[in-house]
Amino acid sequence: MKHVISVLVENKVGVLSRITGLFSGRGFNIESLAVGETENVDISRMTIVVSGDDSILEQVRKQLGKVVDTIKVTDYTGTDYVERNLILIKVSALPGKRNEIIELVDVFRGKIIDVGQKDMIVEISGPEDRLEAVINLLRPFGIKEVARTGRIAMNRGPK
Amino acid sequence: MKHVISVLVENKVGVLSRITGLFSGRGFNIESLAVGETENVDISRMTIVVSGDDSILEQVRKQLGKVVDTIKVTDYTGTDYVERNLILIKVSALPGKRNEIIELVDVFRGKIIDVGQKDMIVEISGPEDRLEAVINLLRPFGIKEVARTGRIAMNRGPK
Repeated sequence: MKHVISVLVENKVGVLSRITGLFSGRGFNIESLAVGETENVDISRMTIVVSGDDSILEQVRKQLGKVVDTIKVTDYTGTDYVERNLILIKVSALPGKRNEIIELVDVFRGKIIDVGQKDMIVEISGPEDRLEAVINLLRPFGIKEVARTGRIAMNRGPK
Repeated sequence: MKHVISVLVENKVGVLSRITGLFSGRGFNIESLAVGETENVDISRMTIVVSGDDSILEQVRKQLGKVVDTIKVTDYTGTDYVERNLILIKVSALPGKRNEIIELVDVFRGKIIDVGQKDMIVEISGPEDRLEAVINLLRPFGIKEVARTGRIAMNRGPK
């Protein structure tokens, strides 16, 4: 089963490597990882997406809680949360094709952030399936490069 | 000096941990890390932001190239590139304050992706300084939670 886990950690040398090592040590491949500062520069938040055996993952989660520099571990699985991802796509765009791409990107509320002689860079954010849809629609134009941030997640507020 | 480095790697167990370990082994703290699949599911792209001594970093870069699962290492520093980051901010938003926040988020071309009884989740993408500006403008309302993806980068096409 797929799990989205957030780990608040102290922003120190080596923490990242120790935590990713806990997963690889148990044979989990990390599908997506995003690490960024929180509003407090001393604290970083890692958002990790893994899938695999739930009981082994529970062991990893317990070990995560024991790493000295870990402040808080949250597993979003089964909770009410939002999930977002950002992607940059460099797509072939000769002058005659540009309008078609711009219209398509508008539909997805994306942005064109660079226009070159032969290509454009498109920026789109959203849940995973929206990004996949955009990639599929842009593929016929010719995708030259893709950079994806990895997912971040946050629990919804009570309604 | 700050460096933005992209590493294309084979999507295998343990690669992430080995590569982050190369940086921490030399005492570099990773400021931001984003890992996501490329258009080829077997290949992931890691975007790493570090700052520190340039000559030591050059050694790390050479070692990165020697890790078996590394396909390509790019240092964007000094090149013409775009850089993006995505942030989710949970901000206090009692009904009387919502419009003010919505207007502010519109200016930054952000999106409101959740509205709860007492708070809203705001999604904004852009370069680092734009995100900092939004955080500063939202702070007076009361920021409850911040999740940031870490930066991704891409070279601009020839003009």
